[in-house]
Amino acid sequence: NPAHIPVVEELFRDRLAELANSPDAFRRLIGIYDPPQGEIDFIGAIADLLRREYQWPVSRKNIALTNGSQAAFFMLFNMFGGRFNKDDNKQILLPLAPEYIGYSDAGLNDHLFRAFKPNIERIDQQTFKYKVDFDSLEIDKGVGAICVSRPTNPTGNVLTDKEVARLDQLAKQNDVPFIIDGAYGTPFPDLIFEEVTPHWNDNTVVCLSLSKLGLPAVRTGIVVAREDIIENLSGMNAVMNLSTGSFGPMLAHELVKSGEILSLSQNHVKPYYAEKAVWAEDYFKTLCRDLPVSLHKVEGAMFLWVWMEGCPVDSQNLYERLKQRGVLVVSGHHFFPGLSDKDKNEWRHSRECLRVTYSQDKEKVKRGLEVLADTLREAYEN
Amino acid sequence: NPAHIPVVEELFRDRLAELANSPDAFRRLIGIYDPPQGEIDFIGAIADLLRREYQWPVSRKNIALTNGSQAAFFMLFNMFGGRFNKDDNKQILLPLAPEYIGYSDAGLNDHLFRAFKPNIERIDQQTFKYKVDFDSLEIDKGVGAICVSRPTNPTGNVLTDKEVARLDQLAKQNDVPFIIDGAYGTPFPDLIFEEVTPHWNDNTVVCLSLSKLGLPAVRTGIVVAREDIIENLSGMNAVMNLSTGSFGPMLAHELVKSGEILSLSQNHVKPYYAEKAVWAEDYFKTLCRDLPVSLHKVEGAMFLWVWMEGCPVDSQNLYERLKQRGVLVVSGHHFFPGLSDKDKNEWRHSRECLRVTYSQDKEKVKRGLEVLADTLREAYEN
Repeated sequence: NPAHIPVVEELFRDRLAELANSPDAFRRLIGIYDPPQGEIDFIGAIADLLRREYQWPVSRKNIALTNGSQAAFFMLFNMFGGRFNKDDNKQILLPLAPEYIGYSDAGLNDHLFRAFKPNIERIDQQTFKYKVDFDSLEIDKGVGAICVSRPTNPTGNVLTDKEVARLDQLAKQNDVPFIIDGAYGTPFPDLIFEEVTPHWNDNTVVCLSLSKLGLPAVRTGIVVAREDIIENLSGMNAVMNLSTGSFGPMLAHELVKSGEILSLSQNHVKPYYAEKAVWAEDYFKTLCRDLPVSLHKVEGAMFLWVWMEGCPVDSQNLYERLKQRGVLVVSGHHFFPGLSDKDKNEWRHSRECLRVTYSQDKEKVKRGLEVLADTLREAYEN
Repeated sequence: NPAHIPVVEELFRDRLAELANSPDAFRRLIGIYDPPQGEIDFIGAIADLLRREYQWPVSRKNIALTNGSQAAFFMLFNMFGGRFNKDDNKQILLPLAPEYIGYSDAGLNDHLFRAFKPNIERIDQQTFKYKVDFDSLEIDKGVGAICVSRPTNPTGNVLTDKEVARLDQLAKQNDVPFIIDGAYGTPFPDLIFEEVTPHWNDNTVVCLSLSKLGLPAVRTGIVVAREDIIENLSGMNAVMNLSTGSFGPMLAHELVKSGEILSLSQNHVKPYYAEKAVWAEDYFKTLCRDLPVSLHKVEGAMFLWVWMEGCPVDSQNLYERLKQRGVLVVSGHHFFPGLSDKDKNEWRHSRECLRVTYSQDKEKVKRGLEVLADTLREAYEN
């Protein structure tokens, strides 16, 4: 769960009170089906914002809403991937494992993903970064789309502008769309702590969400893409959901229209997580100074990605030990959808990582990090 | 769109104001992911209600929420129907065509449905009723589930208790589940104008919705089924949607807990539609006294189903003529998902019907019915 940021909660609460006080707005909120593409005024406001702020050449026809971004991925992956006929089986290429756990089961057929191991760049003794290993990427007729998250859940990795440009190029050359999961990314909530350029063009599908802004239970996903892709998505939405909910669009409409959604992200949401990130990174590194443990460079999202190099205890086992001590982390081995069994077996790294959330209450996170450091020390010592 | 019933709107508006005024409730409303099964307190309240009022032997484990009932059908149809492997292709059997248009495209594979023509029972010169033609039903290994809506959109048909009992029996004998689409049915919103018994058992999947109670834009579907089916549905929900929205459950929770949702249905929602139904049926029959036009017995939902027997102009053409005169109806030929092409071609009836909505403003409906009668008269005369 994302954190509860008081100023953000207050703002949405005021907005909800306004809706409750306006019979007309309230009627639209509960009583009128949105079209399958989503609430059209809200879509218009988003298109205006993207054109105004980023000069993305988009109109209403380039945007569709979904019941959360997970639903968007389910539809997109099965639009571009899967079995089209007996001999035509397309995969979604994930150029940079580890990747988001939520993709794992999204395929209606097996083997929907093809993922590649990254290059691991050492930044200092306690810091590394994953980079796309372009030499190993194999793109052939079996690939239906390229997909990355930016920033990435679980690692906090933010692809460099160069990496994005090269992947975009590769996608174009191979005539497949380039999907960017921006649920934590630009333009909102912008949980990116590096200087990077937002990316969109006719061959790019950018997926956004209101969840990390503080509205996870509201389930609003936003897809920005070429018109024909948006048409297909609307069609799938109609079949699967009849229509999307009006709650998120109506809560967030004024914020998008005024552009305040960007200042809210910049002045409240991003600093909230960035501050916690800096603190958690420092604290954990201090705790682990004497251990062969390092962190992925903290570039965005709301997680520390811990690499226990050469640890005699694997990540799943560590997860269980931590759980017994009341600390919940996620074993890193879950975050490699599409990696071949051979790679998984041979690549010890995939069983040497943990995802740690630092978005919650500071005292709890502090205690959690201490137990984690302690448990790691024990694991190395045995 | 369902109608806007002032007393119902007022009630939900008060509830929303309460949520906006309670920081804790508001935080849950927007800020905390529900589990894939749905908001557990609301699910508990529904289970209690069904046990208390209907003695259905259900617990929390028998209920899952979805983003609207269309989403429930998408998941259920593809759980029980579709291609399981090369030689195993299951169909959803629709024993009583015409059926809901929204099922048509729900299949991930083609030919998901197998529908059967009804017996047409003449009640009087201007009234008929569809009945299941049990003699023609063929159930074999290729059937994965039996599905009916009660009442039916588009016809307003309500299956008799006897028909339900026989279908339930057939489903059990063939070891397939019996799905009842109760989006307009019992226990809420109960747009059923006949005396019938609500039906559920271990082999029955009942699908409910908050839409026709006045919350269509809120997208809350409710599935009551055996525990293993609910587990599968929750798993599919997790993959496709991560979680369902909290808005519907939180707006309706108190109503369900107190049982008020039933009195609201009985005392406000049902009478609102029943009154309109009686009036629209009478008025249209008066207008068409001299034409070979009849109506399906108005037993529920919010539609008149008009049969223009022997009309020289087909329903699609009539739809277009009416549209030109500013009256929107739906051509009946859309409502036969799963009927074989042969049946469709040979069975003239499938092109002789129109669906007319009477839920809106009375003056508009009156004018619409007059134009419709007029257009029908013209069609017969040429």
